[in-house]
Amino acid sequence: MSIQLDGAPVAQTLRTDIRQAVSNWKSTGVQPKMVTLLVGDDKASELYAFQKARWAQRLGIEFDVDRLPADVDIADLQGRVANYSADSQVHGIMVELPLPDGIDKQAVVGHIHALKDVDGLSPCHSFAQASPDSALYPATPLACIRLLKHYGYTLQGADVTVVGCGQTVGLPLIHLLIAEGATVAACHEHTKDVRSHLRSSQIAFVAVGIPGLIKADMVHERLTVVDVGISETESGEVLGDLDAEATSHVQAFTPTPGGIGAVTTVQIFSNLMHAMNLQRQAGLI
Amino acid sequence: MSIQLDGAPVAQTLRTDIRQAVSNWKSTGVQPKMVTLLVGDDKASELYAFQKARWAQRLGIEFDVDRLPADVDIADLQGRVANYSADSQVHGIMVELPLPDGIDKQAVVGHIHALKDVDGLSPCHSFAQASPDSALYPATPLACIRLLKHYGYTLQGADVTVVGCGQTVGLPLIHLLIAEGATVAACHEHTKDVRSHLRSSQIAFVAVGIPGLIKADMVHERLTVVDVGISETESGEVLGDLDAEATSHVQAFTPTPGGIGAVTTVQIFSNLMHAMNLQRQAGLI
Repeated sequence: MSIQLDGAPVAQTLRTDIRQAVSNWKSTGVQPKMVTLLVGDDKASELYAFQKARWAQRLGIEFDVDRLPADVDIADLQGRVANYSADSQVHGIMVELPLPDGIDKQAVVGHIHALKDVDGLSPCHSFAQASPDSALYPATPLACIRLLKHYGYTLQGADVTVVGCGQTVGLPLIHLLIAEGATVAACHEHTKDVRSHLRSSQIAFVAVGIPGLIKADMVHERLTVVDVGISETESGEVLGDLDAEATSHVQAFTPTPGGIGAVTTVQIFSNLMHAMNLQRQAGLI
Repeated sequence: MSIQLDGAPVAQTLRTDIRQAVSNWKSTGVQPKMVTLLVGDDKASELYAFQKARWAQRLGIEFDVDRLPADVDIADLQGRVANYSADSQVHGIMVELPLPDGIDKQAVVGHIHALKDVDGLSPCHSFAQASPDSALYPATPLACIRLLKHYGYTLQGADVTVVGCGQTVGLPLIHLLIAEGATVAACHEHTKDVRSHLRSSQIAFVAVGIPGLIKADMVHERLTVVDVGISETESGEVLGDLDAEATSHVQAFTPTPGGIGAVTTVQIFSNLMHAMNLQRQAGLI
């Protein structure tokens, strides 16, 4: 019988911690504030930005969505990011991705102040060499680690496989896992035999975005699968990378939806609290 | 019969490329220049700094060793690094490590201009998310990749093991290997069974610094070992992480000395050429 590792109780614990931190900041006269830049009219980005605004409000965090037209001048956009970076009342800056065609992501995120880069997008943070304590990592890989710890998993000495080595999830996750003392097999599109790596692993992290990629015959009953992949079918169904049939052939798995995604949406505000501590250390607050 | 993969011919090819690049810069009126800060009187650091100065001279690169006492004020040191960062005549800045006790490395390297950080030490470069083409990586992991390519190895799709996940070699090497399309098993002190990972690998990179760590019974005849570990015995003998007896039980190996180290000393100047291209793109030169 497979265990389903739900994200909701993890998110709940995290929300309690964040509310406490927000309250501490307010008692010192600082109102935590985050801004996200929403460029163009991508419906998914819009939904995601306003979802965050709603969550922020419930946590006591001020949240601005700065809407800009798809044909915004790149220099204007950079200037806005630079202004928020210099504004001592703004503590977290995000840019909703994807940006419209013709706007280079790196040219924009490079202007986010490193200590306000709550999404860990700038080159200074992505894969920062420092320990996770002093760098800002993207929310999704942090959510993966958090969820496992919540359910009592020990990562030190564990053999784990990461399937998918992208910049937002896989690569920073590999860093975090090594920092936790896990032995990591990094697999991707060029890997010849993902199955053999899964066979010798206790935990698999799958972040590819191909629904049902991990089939029942690739897993085993001692394996926990942390499913990060999210795909939406034409009928609006949300699917993970772990095949539905495979979920009954593993020891434990995170459901989609309701697994990692549920933690990630809250983790971003935990990043804001972390960023604010770093900003205070640097004398910015 | 094991094949010995010498570093010398790799270094020779690289030197030719660098001399050509230096000559191209000079013909446009730019004299490539590098500065290294040597703080305190660590004998090994001193030797290493002056070795680099000699190499630079042979390549037509101006090279200053900026000597500072061990009790230098940290603010002075940071100011010097900041001045070199702002100096358009200086294209590469290094800090000899280790720094004397009491001087925090991160507090110093953080002041190196990202595009002049030829040692890839600053948080902006270590594990930069960008492709290797637009980031500066430390010389040693780059030397590992370069040596294997020189000898005709294909990394895409190869199963490789990295033993030792430190910040200077292991971690950036994992990034570079994934970028090359290799499937990477990342092993370290918490790994339970390094042997099993080596068994299913075609190439192993060992960067631990424990002489003779990799014994004959851990390797196999289809394995190539890239030995990055360097230890010096009391009698002055230089030893790698690969046990002497094990060298005859592998398909190929890099010798110590005369392997990766020989390439690394030249690679640093190749990084300078790369940094100068990035500086030109950014309008600094």
